[in-house]
Amino acid sequence: MNELIEHFQSKLTLSKEAEQFLRSIATEHTVSKGKVLIREGQKNDKIFFIASGCLRSYCTNKNGKEHTLQFGIKDWWISDYIALHENTVAQLSVECIKNAKVIELKRNDLKIFREQFPAFQAYQIRNLERLAVSLQKRILNQLQLSASERYDLFLKTYPNIEQDIANYHLASFLGIAQESLSRIRLKRIKEK
Amino acid sequence: MNELIEHFQSKLTLSKEAEQFLRSIATEHTVSKGKVLIREGQKNDKIFFIASGCLRSYCTNKNGKEHTLQFGIKDWWISDYIALHENTVAQLSVECIKNAKVIELKRNDLKIFREQFPAFQAYQIRNLERLAVSLQKRILNQLQLSASERYDLFLKTYPNIEQDIANYHLASFLGIAQESLSRIRLKRIKEK
Repeated sequence: MNELIEHFQSKLTLSKEAEQFLRSIATEHTVSKGKVLIREGQKNDKIFFIASGCLRSYCTNKNGKEHTLQFGIKDWWISDYIALHENTVAQLSVECIKNAKVIELKRNDLKIFREQFPAFQAYQIRNLERLAVSLQKRILNQLQLSASERYDLFLKTYPNIEQDIANYHLASFLGIAQESLSRIRLKRIKEK
Repeated sequence: MNELIEHFQSKLTLSKEAEQFLRSIATEHTVSKGKVLIREGQKNDKIFFIASGCLRSYCTNKNGKEHTLQFGIKDWWISDYIALHENTVAQLSVECIKNAKVIELKRNDLKIFREQFPAFQAYQIRNLERLAVSLQKRILNQLQLSASERYDLFLKTYPNIEQDIANYHLASFLGIAQESLSRIRLKRIKEK
């Protein structure tokens, strides 16, 4: 739980009352690799702060093929934002891919927290701006960069997590076949 | 200018002072089809509220191919959110595709407005949530739906604008060749 409090303290002035309120609405979970925290097709009103470990959000198309939308690492937030903000069923699943500690917050509790402690609003605006930026970048990168350039960007964006991620997760994030990913990696090794 | 005030009045309680402040920071422009309001590679600190007409945001890949990210119609906002929120150069261009009236606001002015009139914060949070949802949907639709399903969704999302949009704009939004778009349209006509 302290990781979440420290995260907020580094971003905004958190009064003793706000900290207590936050502790009262947050739930800490230790999750093992493979555990699904949000499941496609089910209601979702939760957002997770990642204190350690690694998660991913993904969708499955009608042919059963998975597409990884986002990896989540320490100090990041992860959820299905469509379900969270539109009060509908989740279009994404969120799965733990490296043993993790996450802190769960519910949409309505966060709303009350925001209303009672307005200092939190500016943080939330900044956080939503960052989310919009990362989603816009995700779209543009897929449109504008080659597979090899997307791989380089992945290494830069998510340093030190490559070894924790299965090949098919990474390939499904980059939007390429596993064989193409192997070729890109082999080329990198030869270039070194 | 009244369109923007009315839009806010329908979403939040706007005091006389807040309205005056808003009028002092907003600039109205009449823009003709073809006019570029934000240009890829240039600094951008503006966001546009669309009072009438139609705009689109797009990027160009290294082969010169355009990809339309978003169409903007009456009562929507449009900008390059990466440049806007990260204070970098624009990765998108924003172009008028049907004569329009837009109301321009600058990022820093909006920040001051938000600080002086906290009621605006909840609106901005809701607006950013909607933006994140629409961007997440844009990604998932491209991954999960067929070209024909994406065309149907376009008609639903942007009713009555098809006739204002050039074929290559729409094809570049759907991520298909113009010939494929023609085939889909022909099939629709035959089905009727």
